[in-house]
Amino acid sequence: MEGEPLTALCTPALVVDVDIVKRNAQKMMERCRNLGVQLRPHMKTHKTLECADIMTGGSRRCIVVSTLAEACFYADHGFDDILYAYSLPFDKVERCAALSERLSLFQVLLDHPDALEQLRKRPLRDGRLWHVWLKLDCNNGRAGVLHTEPEALQLARAISETEGVELTGVYAHCGNTYNCREVEQIQAVAQETTTFTLQFMEKLKAVGISCKSSIGSTPSCSHPVKDMALLSEVHPGNYTFYDVQQSVIGSCSLQDVAVRVLTRVIGHCPHRNQLLIDCGWTGLSLDGAGKLPTGYAVIEGHPNLKLLSMTQEHGRVEPISGSLDYSRYPLGCLLTLIPYHACATAMMHPVYHIHSEGRLVGRWTPTRGW
Amino acid sequence: MEGEPLTALCTPALVVDVDIVKRNAQKMMERCRNLGVQLRPHMKTHKTLECADIMTGGSRRCIVVSTLAEACFYADHGFDDILYAYSLPFDKVERCAALSERLSLFQVLLDHPDALEQLRKRPLRDGRLWHVWLKLDCNNGRAGVLHTEPEALQLARAISETEGVELTGVYAHCGNTYNCREVEQIQAVAQETTTFTLQFMEKLKAVGISCKSSIGSTPSCSHPVKDMALLSEVHPGNYTFYDVQQSVIGSCSLQDVAVRVLTRVIGHCPHRNQLLIDCGWTGLSLDGAGKLPTGYAVIEGHPNLKLLSMTQEHGRVEPISGSLDYSRYPLGCLLTLIPYHACATAMMHPVYHIHSEGRLVGRWTPTRGW
Repeated sequence: MEGEPLTALCTPALVVDVDIVKRNAQKMMERCRNLGVQLRPHMKTHKTLECADIMTGGSRRCIVVSTLAEACFYADHGFDDILYAYSLPFDKVERCAALSERLSLFQVLLDHPDALEQLRKRPLRDGRLWHVWLKLDCNNGRAGVLHTEPEALQLARAISETEGVELTGVYAHCGNTYNCREVEQIQAVAQETTTFTLQFMEKLKAVGISCKSSIGSTPSCSHPVKDMALLSEVHPGNYTFYDVQQSVIGSCSLQDVAVRVLTRVIGHCPHRNQLLIDCGWTGLSLDGAGKLPTGYAVIEGHPNLKLLSMTQEHGRVEPISGSLDYSRYPLGCLLTLIPYHACATAMMHPVYHIHSEGRLVGRWTPTRGW
Repeated sequence: MEGEPLTALCTPALVVDVDIVKRNAQKMMERCRNLGVQLRPHMKTHKTLECADIMTGGSRRCIVVSTLAEACFYADHGFDDILYAYSLPFDKVERCAALSERLSLFQVLLDHPDALEQLRKRPLRDGRLWHVWLKLDCNNGRAGVLHTEPEALQLARAISETEGVELTGVYAHCGNTYNCREVEQIQAVAQETTTFTLQFMEKLKAVGISCKSSIGSTPSCSHPVKDMALLSEVHPGNYTFYDVQQSVIGSCSLQDVAVRVLTRVIGHCPHRNQLLIDCGWTGLSLDGAGKLPTGYAVIEGHPNLKLLSMTQEHGRVEPISGSLDYSRYPLGCLLTLIPYHACATAMMHPVYHIHSEGRLVGRWTPTRGW
């Protein structure tokens, strides 16, 4: 279908504007270059080779992944220097060991002494070292040792002192930027996370330990604070696609969002002042919980329409005010949804349709599973 | 991995108890046999060949699907008498025509004169007829012509009078049973849908039209009312898997639920009185919106635990009351989630792990896309 217009696609279909992806990737690379910090892009949003190539500038080096399936997928396709940034899962230690013994640089992450014990019990062959990042919780409130707890320093020391294991770095995710609105709030969280991380690096230095440091999230890396220059790396991921959520947070404008879900009108329901579209939660996900003024998505070019609810293969659309003019929305006509959360929407699609200036230029196939 | 225990699986993993699936399928077949109504099982929940074989008793005939991808998948594997029960999508008419010309009996559905016009413009080869079900809305409030509107009868007549097209049946989905609690309410909706459908069949008969009739939903078909015997077919789907939602509605008990998501503890967060599991929304979906007393799922055997929230690959679990005893939940230990909505959870998994009495017996691979 290359060369054909987007209207040639059957719907629902995830479409990606490759020019916007490249522009977003370029901007992030420039931002990191200007800051003097290494960009380690996260693959979790798209999970494709093609977007990984764009994000790494073709180097296929220095990436971060959220699942071991992603790690294996990228390793199988010539990628290296891969950080599996997920609290070491005990059921996957052997698979992690295999990647560590096969790649030049496979890196794992942990936040508990029991995980370190798992690594100690499985020494790598040929004198190789486990490359380990310590996950620090700098008020994000998910995984990681709390940066204020003495256990954090104890665990860092234990990692660095364990035979066969190397403390590669300290990793903090500032997912709490997702509660922010506007740049000022984003930068306050970015500053806090950076400060806490750097303070922890000082504590490490005081006991004679040096290693890398990394923080990340798309909001913080879209609006970095100066002190982030003092970190070794940053690890944003969503920024090549962006989405409505990121525009609400203030990471980007809607013009920066590279992904859409194309959908078609499949029903008129004048007795309910609604129309039906062929995109249910299988095509969009339920992320966002319909809390936008326009419901589960933004319907591009139709600010008065709201995606009210979805079932498996149906979406119910109604006007925010007034009566629907059905002559504007004949059966079969296309509507374009800007997703609330690109990571969640991309996950629902076995293939992404790539376009440039409205013409299809290819398909990207993501990896799935764990 | 056949013969191994479930604990051999990496997590998150969707596991299906094939004995419960067979028992649920058997019960539905018996229920329909006793009622004297044809069972046309819906494939949308699982989308696999193996479960379709169980639901059709191995006949590979008389099924209903929610996407054209499912229709093609089943057609490619020897299934026939397939009803694509989705308001005819105008972008897929040619693909529907191809299936109609290839299978003995491929059936489409519509609820608007413009859709009929699409069929009229694409006559089938070799004198074949389009087999068309009219979608009737009997107060479900999604797709279909409202049963009370004169347009419903007009459209039925138009279908039966259009050259190259046959009115095969009248189809009503009673998804409004999903708002019910307990058998009495379910049966009230089942009765209402049946009555409205049969009244419409009478109107058709009065103008000399006879065709099949079908209603369905897992709640109504799990507790059918006598009058459903007067219908030609019923079309439930979720019932082989069932889920927490169905148990809350009253379709089944929790003992009838065949699916689970296995997950492992990957983090301890005593400062928040929480633990982290390796199942986020990629492994469970966000369906149910966390409204259960136990959050997004039921955690089997741990009634005091609540799945509070999920991000892409993490779930946050906390006690409903009291303090977590972390010694009961060491890192790496397994927890078992009973999903709120099996259709939504199954959709997130590229493979289902099948077990019998706790031993793995195989894998089912669903089809995806549209």
